[in-house]
Amino acid sequence: MSTPVYGAPAAAAGLDIGRNPRTGAAHPGVRHTTAGDVARVVAAAASCAPLVGSLAPVARATWLESIAASLEKHTDALVALADAETALGQDRLSGELATAAASLRFYGAVAGDGGYLQATIDTAEAAAQVDLRRMRLPVGPVAVFGASNFPFGFGVLGHDTASAIAAGCPVVAKAHPAHPRLSVRLGQIASAALAESGAPAGVFAVVVGFDAGLALVDAAPVAAVAFTGSPSGGMALVARAGQRTNPIPVFAEMGTVNPVVVTPAAARTRISDVAQGFARSFTMGTGQFCTKPGLLLAPTGSNAARHLAVALADLPAGWLLTEAMASAFRRGCASLTAAGAMVAGEGNSASAGFAAVPTVFTAAADDLTTGSPLLQECFGPAALVIEYADLDQLREVLGRLQPALAATIASEGADDVDLPWLVPLLACRAGRVIVDGWPTGVANTWAQHHGGPWPATSRPDASSVGASALDRFTRPVVFQGVDDCVLPPPLQRGNPWAVPRRVNGQPRREAGGNADPAQTRGGS
Amino acid sequence: MSTPVYGAPAAAAGLDIGRNPRTGAAHPGVRHTTAGDVARVVAAAASCAPLVGSLAPVARATWLESIAASLEKHTDALVALADAETALGQDRLSGELATAAASLRFYGAVAGDGGYLQATIDTAEAAAQVDLRRMRLPVGPVAVFGASNFPFGFGVLGHDTASAIAAGCPVVAKAHPAHPRLSVRLGQIASAALAESGAPAGVFAVVVGFDAGLALVDAAPVAAVAFTGSPSGGMALVARAGQRTNPIPVFAEMGTVNPVVVTPAAARTRISDVAQGFARSFTMGTGQFCTKPGLLLAPTGSNAARHLAVALADLPAGWLLTEAMASAFRRGCASLTAAGAMVAGEGNSASAGFAAVPTVFTAAADDLTTGSPLLQECFGPAALVIEYADLDQLREVLGRLQPALAATIASEGADDVDLPWLVPLLACRAGRVIVDGWPTGVANTWAQHHGGPWPATSRPDASSVGASALDRFTRPVVFQGVDDCVLPPPLQRGNPWAVPRRVNGQPRREAGGNADPAQTRGGS
Repeated sequence: MSTPVYGAPAAAAGLDIGRNPRTGAAHPGVRHTTAGDVARVVAAAASCAPLVGSLAPVARATWLESIAASLEKHTDALVALADAETALGQDRLSGELATAAASLRFYGAVAGDGGYLQATIDTAEAAAQVDLRRMRLPVGPVAVFGASNFPFGFGVLGHDTASAIAAGCPVVAKAHPAHPRLSVRLGQIASAALAESGAPAGVFAVVVGFDAGLALVDAAPVAAVAFTGSPSGGMALVARAGQRTNPIPVFAEMGTVNPVVVTPAAARTRISDVAQGFARSFTMGTGQFCTKPGLLLAPTGSNAARHLAVALADLPAGWLLTEAMASAFRRGCASLTAAGAMVAGEGNSASAGFAAVPTVFTAAADDLTTGSPLLQECFGPAALVIEYADLDQLREVLGRLQPALAATIASEGADDVDLPWLVPLLACRAGRVIVDGWPTGVANTWAQHHGGPWPATSRPDASSVGASALDRFTRPVVFQGVDDCVLPPPLQRGNPWAVPRRVNGQPRREAGGNADPAQTRGGS
Repeated sequence: MSTPVYGAPAAAAGLDIGRNPRTGAAHPGVRHTTAGDVARVVAAAASCAPLVGSLAPVARATWLESIAASLEKHTDALVALADAETALGQDRLSGELATAAASLRFYGAVAGDGGYLQATIDTAEAAAQVDLRRMRLPVGPVAVFGASNFPFGFGVLGHDTASAIAAGCPVVAKAHPAHPRLSVRLGQIASAALAESGAPAGVFAVVVGFDAGLALVDAAPVAAVAFTGSPSGGMALVARAGQRTNPIPVFAEMGTVNPVVVTPAAARTRISDVAQGFARSFTMGTGQFCTKPGLLLAPTGSNAARHLAVALADLPAGWLLTEAMASAFRRGCASLTAAGAMVAGEGNSASAGFAAVPTVFTAAADDLTTGSPLLQECFGPAALVIEYADLDQLREVLGRLQPALAATIASEGADDVDLPWLVPLLACRAGRVIVDGWPTGVANTWAQHHGGPWPATSRPDASSVGASALDRFTRPVVFQGVDDCVLPPPLQRGNPWAVPRRVNGQPRREAGGNADPAQTRGGS
């Protein structure tokens, strides 16, 4: 890791310098956190971890509510600051802030529900012949590396931070160099809100600078790392965490090429609609979504590329977040062309700053060979259209794609004859399968899953959105023959927190405080 | 990985040669599987994986039942073969076979319950505004590297294989070089039982040889690796799987030094009992348990070491499994001595073969420095006794230990004043906390957890015993806007498999086939 790996923009020594993507002009620099200060915030996180992890989850829900309310109170100033650093636009950013506040509340509610504890009890009379009581405990301090492209949703106060705190883990987040001033400001707001709602010192901190990030991953008390960003950045953190004296898990959400399959029936009946939806989806946020659909597979003769080129003309121009990303985008487009792709259409482009021209490429199905740049993600508003001659060729092409966060089917509706084989096939290669929708936009709910096999993520079982996001920051511990008065509340016979439990194999939802499903004392 | 890493005994070129630990005499060699044959069994596994994963879990339960019944039918011959290769004794081995058969049935029951699918549904009317339906799907073919020390329980038909098949994954298991003939015989029995119960070809196979093992880890269709054995072997597989074109998860259960803390009150009232229990536990199976308690922390003046030395005299002698393990044990004991430990007592030793002398060492608390051999596992019947001067020193010593599979407290009973701080502290450093029992012996139940932070395992969240063992071999997929007729049964509105589900945030246990908790069609 001798070179910066997660999209660092131009930085003076000791400073993160954000720039206005619309003009390229530099904002005031943000000073890097010193090694000593990183050590201090990690020590504070470690010091409060036992308390944070042992409180009732509803306590942490009030902290998250306090942060959410404070975010909302500061909406105007935060959106202005975010827009100056990201050029994502006031509308998108105020929507994203509102969603981030809702997510903080949702993760608090998930914690309060208690299902994430997966409390499971086998009493001594059952098969075990010993009293075994298992629950998930928080792992300890978590290092969060947020994304460039969602300064609120996946930034220092995004899904990773909110779900980790909900799960009972203190968080130290690294400011993203694409929006360092916003990151620091969000840190100040969260720290004040946490203090106001009674959280102990050390629950949350923001550090700045590449070296500070490495120091976080290396810090002995840090128990897990969450990352959202590029594959190179994510895998560098995986390698770094694996070289620790005690290796720790890295949950890297990296994103890949998310495919969209247009069925023959859909191509016959509604190719123009599909093209318009695809164009909107792949250019959304100037193509800077990890769920961006980067590949459209349509039947030969569907004229999908021509429809897409037409649809592009109606869409507004935008900017990429950083100069480095703008050059990477140009390089990515050049390597698509070098690999045999042709430009089929271009959209509107801004005239200054980190502008990017939305571009649709076409290539032949046979060009999609293993290792080809055509199968690599090009972050930004680029998409590739491939025509398939028949279903055999479609199946064969799908088998060559890398796993993805999301795979989409544009069908003719529930009766489309190709859904029954396409849905299970795509389910083997993606974390989310969408029929007649678009992958951009990830609702934060109980059922959501935002993940997928490598290279979509470093952990095929993990999700960075939805109720199960908490699972990354907990691990199971079983207590054998331990008396009620020493057990954590979720495992006590009276179930004082009223969490859902499985007792001797049977799922139960118990009323709190008085139910007594497992009265008998165990022993071994 | 230029040298064998998982305890290979002497092998001729192209043969695994097991030996009789009682005499050292060689058994007939077992031919290594060729690269071509490894590729063929992996291809067969990949080929049947979609069918195996899409069948109702109860179908796989019948396959596991068939294997269990066949194991029981062949008990006498299998135990004799296992004893000839392991010298673990007929009683222990027939008990272990019975337990392994029960485990096969248990994992079948867990699959049939359906809770492991974690079916979760958010309907379009709820917050998501799209219909989202998530469940866990099997990952595909699993490579299993079983342990030396439990030829039935953690061998080619042990927990990993049984839980992977229960979860819907075909398995290719590598024969352990300490019991290659048994491994191959178990493979034959299982294959016949699977065929008899209607399982498709390819669900299970055994391969033999170090190179065959490496080929398994490298094989493109293999989606996960499960390993039980030494830290060096486990971490070598982690590194190897990380170097694949597509890295895959390795669930390595490696084991470490499992501590036992004797509280001051227990030391005052029952040190002799504690010493007898500890001696039995650490010498069980000639100390070849990953849950072996390797470290006893007792208060100064408790005379724990003397009591232990006395207790050792009453225990039978035994053999280590292989010549390599016998030399490693001697080296381990020598390195304890070199690090300042003193021999406090020795037990009975067999006179021939791979004999090992059960040995109790003592050392000073101050000798337990980071990186010291005193903190490393010595596989076999060795244990270290450390006296702590006071609770501050005990706390300090506990902070220096590596995380473990199991941590045990010998207390004076539920009222022991030291339980309230010891139990939570040990829960931060182990996968299982036991009060007034012994860590050897791991009941296979719903609540069990057999795992722990590195170096106990390579995956702090994973368990290789208990209902949650299936989780390692499944990953979540969410279906967005997908019609009932294309959804997997657990997510269909009628819930035909009657699996437990969480619908719009509420856990439900539904009757199968007619309940209709989420009638409304979603869409996005």
